[in-house]
Amino acid sequence: MRVDGIHYSTIWMEGRTVRMIDQLALPFRFEIFDSPDHASTARAIRDMVVRGAGAIGAAGAYGLAQAALEAPPAPQEFAGYVQRAASLIKATRPTAQNLFYAVDRVLAGTLASLPRSEKARAAAVDEAQAIASEDAEAGRRIGEVGAALIKDGARVLTHCNAGWLAFTDWGTALAPLYRAKRDGKRLFAWVDETRPRLQGARLTAWELAGEGIDFRIIPDNAAGWFMRRGEVDLVIVGADRIAANGDTANKIGTYEKAVLARESAIPFYVAAPLSTIDFGCPDGNAIPIEERSEDEVLTASGPEVSTGAIRTVRVAAPGSRARNPAFDVTPAGLITGIITDKGLCKPRELRESYFTNSKLPSQSV
Amino acid sequence: MRVDGIHYSTIWMEGRTVRMIDQLALPFRFEIFDSPDHASTARAIRDMVVRGAGAIGAAGAYGLAQAALEAPPAPQEFAGYVQRAASLIKATRPTAQNLFYAVDRVLAGTLASLPRSEKARAAAVDEAQAIASEDAEAGRRIGEVGAALIKDGARVLTHCNAGWLAFTDWGTALAPLYRAKRDGKRLFAWVDETRPRLQGARLTAWELAGEGIDFRIIPDNAAGWFMRRGEVDLVIVGADRIAANGDTANKIGTYEKAVLARESAIPFYVAAPLSTIDFGCPDGNAIPIEERSEDEVLTASGPEVSTGAIRTVRVAAPGSRARNPAFDVTPAGLITGIITDKGLCKPRELRESYFTNSKLPSQSV
Repeated sequence: MRVDGIHYSTIWMEGRTVRMIDQLALPFRFEIFDSPDHASTARAIRDMVVRGAGAIGAAGAYGLAQAALEAPPAPQEFAGYVQRAASLIKATRPTAQNLFYAVDRVLAGTLASLPRSEKARAAAVDEAQAIASEDAEAGRRIGEVGAALIKDGARVLTHCNAGWLAFTDWGTALAPLYRAKRDGKRLFAWVDETRPRLQGARLTAWELAGEGIDFRIIPDNAAGWFMRRGEVDLVIVGADRIAANGDTANKIGTYEKAVLARESAIPFYVAAPLSTIDFGCPDGNAIPIEERSEDEVLTASGPEVSTGAIRTVRVAAPGSRARNPAFDVTPAGLITGIITDKGLCKPRELRESYFTNSKLPSQSV
Repeated sequence: MRVDGIHYSTIWMEGRTVRMIDQLALPFRFEIFDSPDHASTARAIRDMVVRGAGAIGAAGAYGLAQAALEAPPAPQEFAGYVQRAASLIKATRPTAQNLFYAVDRVLAGTLASLPRSEKARAAAVDEAQAIASEDAEAGRRIGEVGAALIKDGARVLTHCNAGWLAFTDWGTALAPLYRAKRDGKRLFAWVDETRPRLQGARLTAWELAGEGIDFRIIPDNAAGWFMRRGEVDLVIVGADRIAANGDTANKIGTYEKAVLARESAIPFYVAAPLSTIDFGCPDGNAIPIEERSEDEVLTASGPEVSTGAIRTVRVAAPGSRARNPAFDVTPAGLITGIITDKGLCKPRELRESYFTNSKLPSQSV
């Protein structure tokens, strides 16, 4: 998408270098982080220089392509090198499903081209590029499918950041807004700030401003109230994993907003590429929920108002303990529809056969 | 309640000075703020040096007593001075029922003692002291009534701060926990951090630690998830104003937690003295909702982790706008019971006659 009028992807490869928008610097500074080798790319994933389901997958894919370019030419040594690199990269975010998918796919394509190491190097780079392109294309398609749900003048509430920064381009939950805006529709976005890491206030707000979409940040506590007052027309969120029965794991707070949307009879949509659906996972109870550091709840960071210097401050009573589940599970019954790159479907209509079909059986929800 | 073993009220009067615990300094520094005159006391209410339903009421009462002490002795000028002071004080916080109740009550008692201005001054101070004492006593009684609802080992979720800092002593939502703890029951509290001002993470956490009650702070986004997982036995919140039909205005986010409690079949109680009930207000639609500064959403403050110096940092994308409704209204139908100083009642059983009875008609919900 555009930054100051120039098109950017979230992450891309130039020669042997993986370049990515530094998401630790955003929204306060727009900087490109250059990663010269696969070990550096692995660190960037682990430290969340790059974050978001699709973007992590692309970063892992490019990281493995870097490893293929670095590896010694002798076939056995080459294979050992890229296999070790794959293990290193996959260990950075142990719960990120897209990461495993992308790294394993590049690894398979690379090893299949041995013993000719030059061919294997080219295969690695091609496969990584393909993953990144497919991710952007899935987002573009999700935008088209989802834009049909957004009427002129609609007020859309979203939670966390499932925008283009979380993928290589377009994103999921925000892609329909971008499509609708470019199609000339008037729209307004309610942005849940999304404690504790504030991805809404930081990243979604930054993205929407870049696309010229009018929005207001609200405390997560206020989302239900604006719904009840009739000021929200629909809700669109992303997904970290969708179980086979349609139960959806997403950023903590998503479940709350889904219950509240139903209470006010507001449509609640999940936007995700089909690759987010885990058919090996029968329902939400089987999805492990990552619990993150208490410090994310007990502190806040950003540029000091008076000086602009980045500071971290304590926001809670000293000595307090916190709980910090990073995700929750929204039952399928609370989800109006899933906006995928292959079309719109009801959560209970998910079938593995969708992967092989060009269209979903149900096109309207 | 106790601070380092010494009993404190939240606010009190010494001579012409109103003294109060500085709730902007808490939980990082325990300081007493001295307000020399009624204009300063009004500013302290507006700027939230003192906050919370009952504490605001007591502050307003003491502020008007200060005005009576400042007023010129000639009866007509005296009356004009205290009436202007009453208007000034009541304009500080539009949603707080206790503020209007307290200021009007002190004003009536003062004007009734004219033309003798010395008698009116004494009446003002006496009435303000009476309001503060009644508030503490109401909290103590609410603790007794509410403790009966807390079983040994209960896990209680609360939102914002309706503890002793929000009143002159004991508080409302937290008073049953204090009573239960002193009665030897084991209990655990889930503390919603309560964005944007974080009264849960700051004040409720500070209070609970002082009383030795085990607790964890959670992002507001996680409350519904812990309810769904069966880790919450009951919810108790405070109230800023209760309409005649039982609809209850309280801190933003209360409505969300009430909907989520019903979704998981968890009892949801409101704790408030009878003075919080506004029988002139037919239902929640008639309660004005204060909207506060966007900066409360866009920034966070606290001691810097590395130096301890108090800093304010930006937490949102630069240039972003926010909405910040300070309260919401929870419909009576979502409220299991109201824990009052006169007993427990169902929200739809509220009757003006309660004010004159020593007992509520319904003692069980």
